[in-house]
Amino acid sequence: MAMSQVVNTYPLSNYSFGTKEPKLEKDTSVADRLARMKVNYMKEGMRTSVEGILLVQEHNHPHILLLQIGNTFCKLPGGRLKPGENEVEGLKRKLTSKLGGNSAGFVPDWKVGECVATWWRPNFETMMYPYCPPHITKPKECKRLYIVHLSEKEYFAVPKNLKLLAVPLFELYDNVQRYGPVISTIPQQLSRFHFNMISS
Amino acid sequence: MAMSQVVNTYPLSNYSFGTKEPKLEKDTSVADRLARMKVNYMKEGMRTSVEGILLVQEHNHPHILLLQIGNTFCKLPGGRLKPGENEVEGLKRKLTSKLGGNSAGFVPDWKVGECVATWWRPNFETMMYPYCPPHITKPKECKRLYIVHLSEKEYFAVPKNLKLLAVPLFELYDNVQRYGPVISTIPQQLSRFHFNMISS
Ligand SMILES: [Zn+2]
Ligand SMILES: [Zn+2]
Ligand SMILES: [Zn+2]
Ligand SMILES: [Zn+2]
Repeated sequence: MAMSQVVNTYPLSNYSFGTKEPKLEKDTSVADRLARMKVNYMKEGMRTSVEGILLVQEHNHPHILLLQIGNTFCKLPGGRLKPGENEVEGLKRKLTSKLGGNSAGFVPDWKVGECVATWWRPNFETMMYPYCPPHITKPKECKRLYIVHLSEKEYFAVPKNLKLLAVPLFELYDNVQRYGPVISTIPQQLSRFHFNMISS
Repeated sequence: MAMSQVVNTYPLSNYSFGTKEPKLEKDTSVADRLARMKVNYMKEGMRTSVEGILLVQEHNHPHILLLQIGNTFCKLPGGRLKPGENEVEGLKRKLTSKLGGNSAGFVPDWKVGECVATWWRPNFETMMYPYCPPHITKPKECKRLYIVHLSEKEYFAVPKNLKLLAVPLFELYDNVQRYGPVISTIPQQLSRFHFNMISS
């Protein structure tokens, strides 16, 4: 048998959750968001964003931590890199901004692991693809998803306007209607790993 | 920037194709296939199968080699391991059986690389999942997909009853109707790699 890479997952109940000041979305509509993206592209070129896949386990099945905004929209914690910023360092900065406590002692020890997917935005439109489409020489955004290996216990501070959910892989799978094309295919991207379910 | 793993892809026109004696399917219906699977499970336990993702490039876009049976059904080259057989060795054996020439000098130098996905069959049914569903302790099949790094030039012998197609990632993406759940999400699983498109 070939070796699979191992990801340790700890019970959701190992982690504790507090709240902090709201992190408001920069845009109030998709049109605003795409317009802002265009302005930034003119100034800084292709946008690079990074998102973290944080895993926990419940009933021996892997769950992913998602931030819910309002009643339905879910996203991975992460965000846009500064021009020239290192992907791993930028992801740690974004994770701390989204989920870290307010004092340095309450910032989780983020261990950024394997890149599991890359998505490309060819135009200033909502559609993204898991490849750069043929004849697109100037994509507008590149988004990379990384596994973040959580320690056995952590404290997360969740912005008051967001909810942090632990969603099982079986709920994400084949559920593009609810989670969109990026999040709903995370189960396939994680399938090559062996999850070591630790019950402590 | 974090490093992506690199996969070299050569033009489809670098490869040459011949034919060989037909490889007939063992079953003529889905019901027959599931019944045979059940008989084998009783004798040998969980079935392990391995499939190869062979990549070429055309107009600087990655394409995957698929075997077409009849007019519509496509599959990856690969097959079932013998009990206890090593995954990489078993995949090489299956690739030679499906695509190797009839004499040893015409067998490609198969370089089996990264595992990109694992699929589980919980019951003797057609549905497979990219995780072992909760409370399933005796899955019936585990299928693993591997990248196969092709050399710059190769000769493939295609069984007369099959057609070998080079299908671009953009054709597979989001096309579960035509390619099924396993093959249609290969673009997402490959998205973490950097494809080095070589035009020779
Ligand atoms: Zn759950
Ligand atoms: Zn349960
Ligand atoms: Zn083509
Ligand atoms: Zn072209």
